[in-house]
Amino acid sequence: MSDFVDLTPERVRELDRAHVFHSWSAQGSLNPMVITKAEGSHVWDQDGQRLLDFTSQLVFTNLGHQHPRIVSAIQEQAAYLCTVAPQHANAARSEAARLIAGHTPGDLDRVFFTNGGADANEHAIRMARLHTGRIKVLSTYRSYHGGTHLAVNVTGDPRRWPNDHGAAGTVHFFGPFLYRSRFHATTEAEECERALDHLAEVIAMEGPQTIAAIVLEAIPGTAGIMVPPPGYLSGVRRLCDEHGIMLIADEVMSGFGRSGRWFASELDGLVPDLLTFAKGVNSGYVPLGGVAISPAIAATFDDRVYPGGLTYSGHPLACAAAVATIRTMEDDRVVEHAAALGEEVFAPGLAELARTHEWVGEVRGTGAFWAVELVADRETREPLAPYGGTSPQVNAVVAACKKRGMLPFVNFNRIHLVPPLTTTALEVTEAIEILDAALAEVAG
Amino acid sequence: MSDFVDLTPERVRELDRAHVFHSWSAQGSLNPMVITKAEGSHVWDQDGQRLLDFTSQLVFTNLGHQHPRIVSAIQEQAAYLCTVAPQHANAARSEAARLIAGHTPGDLDRVFFTNGGADANEHAIRMARLHTGRIKVLSTYRSYHGGTHLAVNVTGDPRRWPNDHGAAGTVHFFGPFLYRSRFHATTEAEECERALDHLAEVIAMEGPQTIAAIVLEAIPGTAGIMVPPPGYLSGVRRLCDEHGIMLIADEVMSGFGRSGRWFASELDGLVPDLLTFAKGVNSGYVPLGGVAISPAIAATFDDRVYPGGLTYSGHPLACAAAVATIRTMEDDRVVEHAAALGEEVFAPGLAELARTHEWVGEVRGTGAFWAVELVADRETREPLAPYGGTSPQVNAVVAACKKRGMLPFVNFNRIHLVPPLTTTALEVTEAIEILDAALAEVAG
Repeated sequence: MSDFVDLTPERVRELDRAHVFHSWSAQGSLNPMVITKAEGSHVWDQDGQRLLDFTSQLVFTNLGHQHPRIVSAIQEQAAYLCTVAPQHANAARSEAARLIAGHTPGDLDRVFFTNGGADANEHAIRMARLHTGRIKVLSTYRSYHGGTHLAVNVTGDPRRWPNDHGAAGTVHFFGPFLYRSRFHATTEAEECERALDHLAEVIAMEGPQTIAAIVLEAIPGTAGIMVPPPGYLSGVRRLCDEHGIMLIADEVMSGFGRSGRWFASELDGLVPDLLTFAKGVNSGYVPLGGVAISPAIAATFDDRVYPGGLTYSGHPLACAAAVATIRTMEDDRVVEHAAALGEEVFAPGLAELARTHEWVGEVRGTGAFWAVELVADRETREPLAPYGGTSPQVNAVVAACKKRGMLPFVNFNRIHLVPPLTTTALEVTEAIEILDAALAEVAG
Repeated sequence: MSDFVDLTPERVRELDRAHVFHSWSAQGSLNPMVITKAEGSHVWDQDGQRLLDFTSQLVFTNLGHQHPRIVSAIQEQAAYLCTVAPQHANAARSEAARLIAGHTPGDLDRVFFTNGGADANEHAIRMARLHTGRIKVLSTYRSYHGGTHLAVNVTGDPRRWPNDHGAAGTVHFFGPFLYRSRFHATTEAEECERALDHLAEVIAMEGPQTIAAIVLEAIPGTAGIMVPPPGYLSGVRRLCDEHGIMLIADEVMSGFGRSGRWFASELDGLVPDLLTFAKGVNSGYVPLGGVAISPAIAATFDDRVYPGGLTYSGHPLACAAAVATIRTMEDDRVVEHAAALGEEVFAPGLAELARTHEWVGEVRGTGAFWAVELVADRETREPLAPYGGTSPQVNAVVAACKKRGMLPFVNFNRIHLVPPLTTTALEVTEAIEILDAALAEVAG
């Protein structure tokens, strides 16, 4: 830090524009916000403006910014042992694996560590393919599973399109989404039943014996926080069991308390064969992801080499941050707090917002994981920005939120409110009031 | 650390075997070394034995273990700002990008940060494909480019085989390797000329207009540290220019001083279109990789969205470690030291080893990047372990090295000596003496 502590925000931005190539962007017109400070539920920008961070950056700072216990754990581990290669063992990695295995559903008790969510999904798919001897992978439209080649091809959002060549055996189907039902359903129960029928038919038409895995976000995140209806996840589990298909639950965004449960799979008592995680596992303080593995799949690689790996698998610094994060979540009852925020503050506050603003087509979510669906017309449900795009109206709402001191997460026509799980009820109320005022200002 | 400081090495291993799934391994028979301490060129195992680390773990701790300047930088950045999302800007990332751009060859002055080498190569290939509008990617047999699906299919070593399905447009050719010449060459100049002829013919047969990129380790690393003959890299550059093919130099292992130069591309004055890095960029203290991008390719994405990204792109903690690493390399003249170690200690010491041991077929390398090729027969050059496998003899040599206090890197029939660049001449001499004694003991 002493090496660059004197850089002004202007110089930081100038160097950024000269030398940093940004994710998912056209580079020419970028004018990134410079983050100069962060603490708890807040970040500060280049002008010293304090913003409520209702993005958790990219939905990963589950314990907020600069949590003292995680910071100390990183500093102490750095002083002791920054790094070892994956083939060796070390205390931070062993303890992180034990803690993670203690919270994952059912009997998932072995952990393969990766650097993030994309490679976690890539490796989970590889394990499923080698375990079953089958190639095909089914995933939903309206999903995101990562940016590497296979992961982005399994993904079902428009970010796949420019990469949509040469990933054999990836097939997409429709998940449940009552507000925009593909199945002409009018109730959650009907949506659930019809979505399972649809999946059963896709399996039949693709050939069950060709399908290695179904990959599913337990709650689809960036695609819209569509909490699955009761019975859906367990219904997919039944279909998988019937056909010897592995079920991979992608809990990269939904895991580690985000949904008000340790894992969103618990919504429906789901025990997947493989569960992928990243982000919340250590609040993103050090890059870390991983795959929790069922005993049956782990046993496949008892005598057979698992043909995959990476240099930083089980990185001690990242694992030390995970240990501190998980222990803090346990000790401070953070998951219970997130559940209460969802039930007691988000649900009533956003319902009120839906009652008062024509642009709000639906609000939905659980825990600290909420979406506000903006529509141009409540009857037709026409989105206020097109699929895969933006609109001046949505941009104006976001700008009005920022002006008032709240940073929301945006995707197409949706505003997501996804703050740190440690955010207080008062802060959530403040953020909802800001969104209320922003909508009033922009929609008139 | 306070959370698990009391774990005994036995307990660390027990938890590891219960809960950690390891890279590139059959899990049933693992008995990993527990690393309990590390400092400079040494690590300590569960029995308190001190070992010269001539692996740099997985060839990444280029400044050795627990370098105080990197440790302090991590601690200070952790106290200040652990993490921000990739769409924002921050001082650590801007400064790291500036420093990296200052050392990469030619005009590569934009950096896309990833978590490691695999995703760096995946994104470099995507950039080349979208820039050229072509799909095919050529890479060499005897190469390693990473563990994710596309990266491992571009890879040319046996780790590809079990993953060898469904990566369209990956084609392999033979690079120069005089000791095991595919071209029946007897001199480096002949090997170079014939290897370029071979590549030109593969390009012609595949169709130049179908080829997006040639991906090449500037010096193939795990595959055998085959320093390319003078004229090879520049010859590949000419072929690429002739056909509008992008040249991706994979400097994940060879970069940041390993070869006695900042980048091994400098060996032949190569300026690639894309250069991928990881490992040495921050000595692996925090997971980090990236792609350095030519102005022409960057310009392709000025107005067009680059369809790729990742949550931890440009992670501040990882970038702060990179800043400290690069400044230390500059201030302490670490690259020059590595070059001197190669010329003055490794080259003569290993040449002597080759004279005295029948099993040593060839020694080769540069900087702190050396391979000892073990053969059963010097005439036939039959490897002492098969391609893709191990042998009792090689295992015995490695065990004898460890017993004497030196940890070598092993691949098939080869022993690699790849210590931190900060290793002293005395430590290198000690390691070579240990290998000498181990060979004498095992070969008799």
